[in-house]
Amino acid sequence: MSPVKVLRNCTDLEKSVAAIAVIFNNHAGSDGKLSKAQAKDLLLAQFQSFIKGQELKPKYKEIISDLDEDKDKKIDFEDFMIILTSLTIMSNIMHELQCLTMKK
Amino acid sequence: MSPVKVLRNCTDLEKSVAAIAVIFNNHAGSDGKLSKAQAKDLLLAQFQSFIKGQELKPKYKEIISDLDEDKDKKIDFEDFMIILTSLTIMSNIMHELQCLTMKK
Repeated sequence: MSPVKVLRNCTDLEKSVAAIAVIFNNHAGSDGKLSKAQAKDLLLAQFQSFIKGQELKPKYKEIISDLDEDKDKKIDFEDFMIILTSLTIMSNIMHELQCLTMKK
Repeated sequence: MSPVKVLRNCTDLEKSVAAIAVIFNNHAGSDGKLSKAQAKDLLLAQFQSFIKGQELKPKYKEIISDLDEDKDKKIDFEDFMIILTSLTIMSNIMHELQCLTMKK
C-alpha cells in the first residue's frame, strides 16, 4: 500500500503531522521550500490563535524580525516546524492545554 | 474567550498543532515532560506509519539509540517536536506528500 494510502487508518498524531506537512507543501515551491516572507504570511494567516497575545514577547519579535530579514531566503519543513514549535511553546493555548491535562 | 475555547473556530494548522500538544501533554507528567522511554513508546505506538521503512536508516537508529540512552531523562515538548520532525522528514509519507502537492 502506498505510504499516503496508509494515512487512512492512522493515529491522530500521524494525521496531525501529515496535515501540517500538507499545509506546508501546499504553500511551498517546487523546491519544497517557502520563502521567509511566505512563511510569515502563512503563520500570520493560519496561526493567529497561537500568536495572539505573544506579540510583545522578545522571542516572538525575534522570530518575526528573522522572517523579515532576507525575505527571499528559503526555509524548509524542518525550519518551519521549529518556528511553529517556538510559537506554540510561548502561547497561552499551550499553557492552558497543559493545565487542562493536569486537571485530569 | 479563553485561549482553548478559541480553538473551536481555528484553522487546520492550529487544530493539528493543538492535537499534537494534547497528545504529548496526555502522556507527560506533572512537570509537563516525558521520559525518553515514554517518548519512544509513544512514537512506536502512534507514529508507525511514518516510521515504517526507516528502521535501517542511520538517522532513525541515532534517534532510537538516543532515546534508549539514559531512559529516565526527561524531554519537553520542544524536544518531542524535533524528534517528530526528523522522523517525518525521512519518511516515505513526507516524500509522497511532496510529490502529490507538486502534481497539482
